[in-house]
Amino acid sequence: MGACKIIIDTDPGQDDAVAILLALASPDEIEVLGITAVAGNVPLALTARNARIVCELAGRTDVPVYAGCDRPLGRPLVTAEHVHGKTGLNGPVLPDPTMPLQQDHAVDFIIQTLRSEDSGAVTLCPLGPLTNIAMAFEKAPDIVGRVAEIVLMGGAYFEVGNITPAAEFNIYVDPQAADIVLKSGAEITVMPLDVTHKALVTRARNDAFRALGTRVGTAVADMTDFFERFDKEKYGTAGAPLHDPCVTAYLIRPDLFTGRHVNVEIETRSELTMGMTVADWWRVTDRAPNAMFMGDLDADGFFDLLTERLGRL
Amino acid sequence: MGACKIIIDTDPGQDDAVAILLALASPDEIEVLGITAVAGNVPLALTARNARIVCELAGRTDVPVYAGCDRPLGRPLVTAEHVHGKTGLNGPVLPDPTMPLQQDHAVDFIIQTLRSEDSGAVTLCPLGPLTNIAMAFEKAPDIVGRVAEIVLMGGAYFEVGNITPAAEFNIYVDPQAADIVLKSGAEITVMPLDVTHKALVTRARNDAFRALGTRVGTAVADMTDFFERFDKEKYGTAGAPLHDPCVTAYLIRPDLFTGRHVNVEIETRSELTMGMTVADWWRVTDRAPNAMFMGDLDADGFFDLLTERLGRL
Amino acid sequence: MGACKIIIDTDPGQDDAVAILLALASPDEIEVLGITAVAGNVPLALTARNARIVCELAGRTDVPVYAGCDRPLGRPLVTAEHVHGKTGLNGPVLPDPTMPLQQDHAVDFIIQTLRSEDSGAVTLCPLGPLTNIAMAFEKAPDIVGRVAEIVLMGGAYFEVGNITPAAEFNIYVDPQAADIVLKSGAEITVMPLDVTHKALVTRARNDAFRALGTRVGTAVADMTDFFERFDKEKYGTAGAPLHDPCVTAYLIRPDLFTGRHVNVEIETRSELTMGMTVADWWRVTDRAPNAMFMGDLDADGFFDLLTERLGRL
Amino acid sequence: MGACKIIIDTDPGQDDAVAILLALASPDEIEVLGITAVAGNVPLALTARNARIVCELAGRTDVPVYAGCDRPLGRPLVTAEHVHGKTGLNGPVLPDPTMPLQQDHAVDFIIQTLRSEDSGAVTLCPLGPLTNIAMAFEKAPDIVGRVAEIVLMGGAYFEVGNITPAAEFNIYVDPQAADIVLKSGAEITVMPLDVTHKALVTRARNDAFRALGTRVGTAVADMTDFFERFDKEKYGTAGAPLHDPCVTAYLIRPDLFTGRHVNVEIETRSELTMGMTVADWWRVTDRAPNAMFMGDLDADGFFDLLTERLGRL
Repeated sequence: MGACKIIIDTDPGQDDAVAILLALASPDEIEVLGITAVAGNVPLALTARNARIVCELAGRTDVPVYAGCDRPLGRPLVTAEHVHGKTGLNGPVLPDPTMPLQQDHAVDFIIQTLRSEDSGAVTLCPLGPLTNIAMAFEKAPDIVGRVAEIVLMGGAYFEVGNITPAAEFNIYVDPQAADIVLKSGAEITVMPLDVTHKALVTRARNDAFRALGTRVGTAVADMTDFFERFDKEKYGTAGAPLHDPCVTAYLIRPDLFTGRHVNVEIETRSELTMGMTVADWWRVTDRAPNAMFMGDLDADGFFDLLTERLGRL
Repeated sequence: MGACKIIIDTDPGQDDAVAILLALASPDEIEVLGITAVAGNVPLALTARNARIVCELAGRTDVPVYAGCDRPLGRPLVTAEHVHGKTGLNGPVLPDPTMPLQQDHAVDFIIQTLRSEDSGAVTLCPLGPLTNIAMAFEKAPDIVGRVAEIVLMGGAYFEVGNITPAAEFNIYVDPQAADIVLKSGAEITVMPLDVTHKALVTRARNDAFRALGTRVGTAVADMTDFFERFDKEKYGTAGAPLHDPCVTAYLIRPDLFTGRHVNVEIETRSELTMGMTVADWWRVTDRAPNAMFMGDLDADGFFDLLTERLGRL
Repeated sequence: MGACKIIIDTDPGQDDAVAILLALASPDEIEVLGITAVAGNVPLALTARNARIVCELAGRTDVPVYAGCDRPLGRPLVTAEHVHGKTGLNGPVLPDPTMPLQQDHAVDFIIQTLRSEDSGAVTLCPLGPLTNIAMAFEKAPDIVGRVAEIVLMGGAYFEVGNITPAAEFNIYVDPQAADIVLKSGAEITVMPLDVTHKALVTRARNDAFRALGTRVGTAVADMTDFFERFDKEKYGTAGAPLHDPCVTAYLIRPDLFTGRHVNVEIETRSELTMGMTVADWWRVTDRAPNAMFMGDLDADGFFDLLTERLGRL
Repeated sequence: MGACKIIIDTDPGQDDAVAILLALASPDEIEVLGITAVAGNVPLALTARNARIVCELAGRTDVPVYAGCDRPLGRPLVTAEHVHGKTGLNGPVLPDPTMPLQQDHAVDFIIQTLRSEDSGAVTLCPLGPLTNIAMAFEKAPDIVGRVAEIVLMGGAYFEVGNITPAAEFNIYVDPQAADIVLKSGAEITVMPLDVTHKALVTRARNDAFRALGTRVGTAVADMTDFFERFDKEKYGTAGAPLHDPCVTAYLIRPDLFTGRHVNVEIETRSELTMGMTVADWWRVTDRAPNAMFMGDLDADGFFDLLTERLGRL
């Protein structure tokens, strides 16, 4: 069986960067058809730039990068510079990208790729707000049935929220898009805060990145050094949660994750709980399951995998 | 001063058909750059078909017709066959269209046209749910500032609703899209039910269409004969309201209409009032005006114009 | 058949005052068992005071007046001094009341009266926010089935709103209470703005009050002189709408009013349309009718009645 | 310092019963001024009956029991016989009560007690939906400032929900009442599922109740035997959570509990998340704290206390 063909839809973000690096470091398991940028952690101009910086850091200027939507559906953009720094990739010093941004719109690249590849061959990996994915599904509903799976980072159940008391950032930024995607009928695996808050970069894990002695290892260590400041102060945790790499790690080692196949609905009506992922974890309703909602991971296994793979770049 | 360049975004619908015919019959005032179909009164396959039937009825197979979105943003499609009949154009017997549907997606045609024409040169005329327009604005926000004006049929204030007690059909079908368009910052003129329920096809006015003795005149008389059944039974009015032709008539004779420049917001949160156009007609809030909300028309002047122009085809 | 026994629940307000005077002037048709004050147009201390001022103006210090709730259910109180003046009864100069306020809470008076009178004997006449009525129904659900009818001033359909673009003042102030009352199952007649905006105090009608030459006539003329300022500026109408007297006039001359028995629901979920009375006037839903929603009145007949009766005091 | 004077507002329920027994068994610390019943776990007729059964089981027929509201504010009653059994006290066989129900309404007892006792002397202990408390605050706002503290069982944050995926039962049944109470300005301590799901009646703890060898000990063991069935099946936990006794235990041993003073708002707008207690645990907003929201308890200390006190009855 060949590598899993994926499109990474992303708003880098340090943890997005590590997720991309993990994918690019794992060609036996993952073939990255393209990277589509979306506004989220920082504005689109920066996420489209950062995606190319990361490709160049991995020496993979062959991966096409597309810019997508610069704002969520019907809401003003909320960004997270307080977490990721002004550029979204604060921490390491990395050169400006020289590889070009593709001309096509990210939404059209997603549509065209899903139409041109075999049905069921392409997995979508959204690491940011779901605007691009929802736009593609609305513009070309025929592609929904051709998606192999959507493995996304977003939402929370027991961990509830990080940007508001009820909502996780990616879903909060574009709840309408998330609602469209969750109701699309596509096969969906969700990596919520419940999982990603267990993927903490402890000092020892950060040291392991740095000990790789490579340019990538150092950059990743610098990123997680920067990134952890926010969570340490806020949650008092032992290190930064590596949210997005859970998505690409899952494609390589699904056995590291456990969850439940449940119904997940998105709150789109109330400002107080806007963007909440209401997961029927205890099955107290009779709503039909529409997503595999992950709840736990083998953190040591995850970091072992990550460090080993980053060492290949 | 030359003709006003427009894109008609439409879900025909008998009254959409009359609106299109009025535009095509008025080349001195209106240049139709293209017609984009959207799902609404009937499903997309039928609206894309009906748009071409109408072009052929007018002998204007040169007008490109594009298919757009086949569903609203994040909601199931609601249609109105109870008003328009199964095909959307019930009434006259018209041949199947032979002119082709364009390959491009309506959303991309709208974007490309606004980018290729001079800024401020193109007016958008939405006659159905605002899905295509909202999708274009979300995909390419740069085009919003290039729109000359949006003249749309939709909403209601004192007339309140027709599909629900609080909402007019076009806005109700895609409230999220309407919300995006109304908040876009584009110059907007709204033709609500308050106006269109005064554009009633009385028996005499229907006779005047038929008396034209032309193929178009007979077809329009047959359409309004069919169309009036619904409103007569429901509202007890003297004839069918010609909603959508108000949009194209406004481009030719704006003096026929009066209204107020007020704030209009779209209800998107509550199921009970979903899709209501909340117009601050009495200025009881301090919300900034964002639309010219029409309230009255010179009905005789409107039908004189319409009959005279249809006679030219 | 004897006089109709009523409790007037009110937040005077000049038009409330006229409604009370009309009831007290019509002992053959109406027996006022008591007046219950609620916070609304002005705070409770003032409405409880104004109710007694009006009783004394009518020489009816025998009518017991009770104070009720000083705030709506779960919302801050909104008042309307911009319409009614600082005291709520601005306009005439009237002495401070000397009659006492009853000790019992208005809610308990309503409950006790409905329990002690024959079932079906008492009509409730709410002229302000429905807080007291809803509280009584919640505290003592057994009384709902004993109410003869609720004839209330509140809401709007085609006239839509006055305090917000979507809501009339009385319902807007306490939408939860209105929702409880409308869903209670009691027989309900609603006098919305659609009716009361047709009950305009023109100059001639005001002159007719003043021409009575009585203390009451002069006071009412002074009240409507004050009251009309607001509506004249805002709506450009010919005079002040006498909202609340429609309720008591209906008890005397129901033939002056026409309406429809329809479903009326209250918007309680969305801030934009909060407090809207969504009346299914055109019966576009299959919701069961729960209220007689008035739409028109014989304005001349109404003012003839009112002037004649005020002349009796 | 004397015993804490409390009113227990309750919808027994086995765990309510244990909470009441704990209070009645602790006269040095707690003086129960009265018990007010509310509809919740089972209808009002049963909760008012069960409250008296529990008083009689404790030999405390001197404690006055009042019936309150039989339905939440503006919503149909939802009950929980699937958890508590048909009577609400399924499990032990207990005789019908012979002590009378008081004539006054629970809402009035709460008001009168707060007015007649010293300001700041009375603590309210709601163990069910907050209908009675909210009604008392709405009817007599002057009492809010006289409340010493409200210690209530309800809500959840990390444990999210039990009756819906987002809401705990007590708050879900009457979200409007909860909203009124949380916004009242009274000092509030919340015992959410986050705490009560740690107060699990293991087999050993149940055995300890039974080993008391008293009528009360046996009854409580029978209650928790019945009660645990539901949670064992649903959550796979080691025993039934003793929700409500956390409230009365807190009055005796506050040191057993830890939490955070944070803002807690109630979702009242969206059906999906209706009744959620949105606690700003991580202080991601600038909303002012309005409640001590408990998060943990010393479970062994709690059960030691409970067993020892029950042994006194």
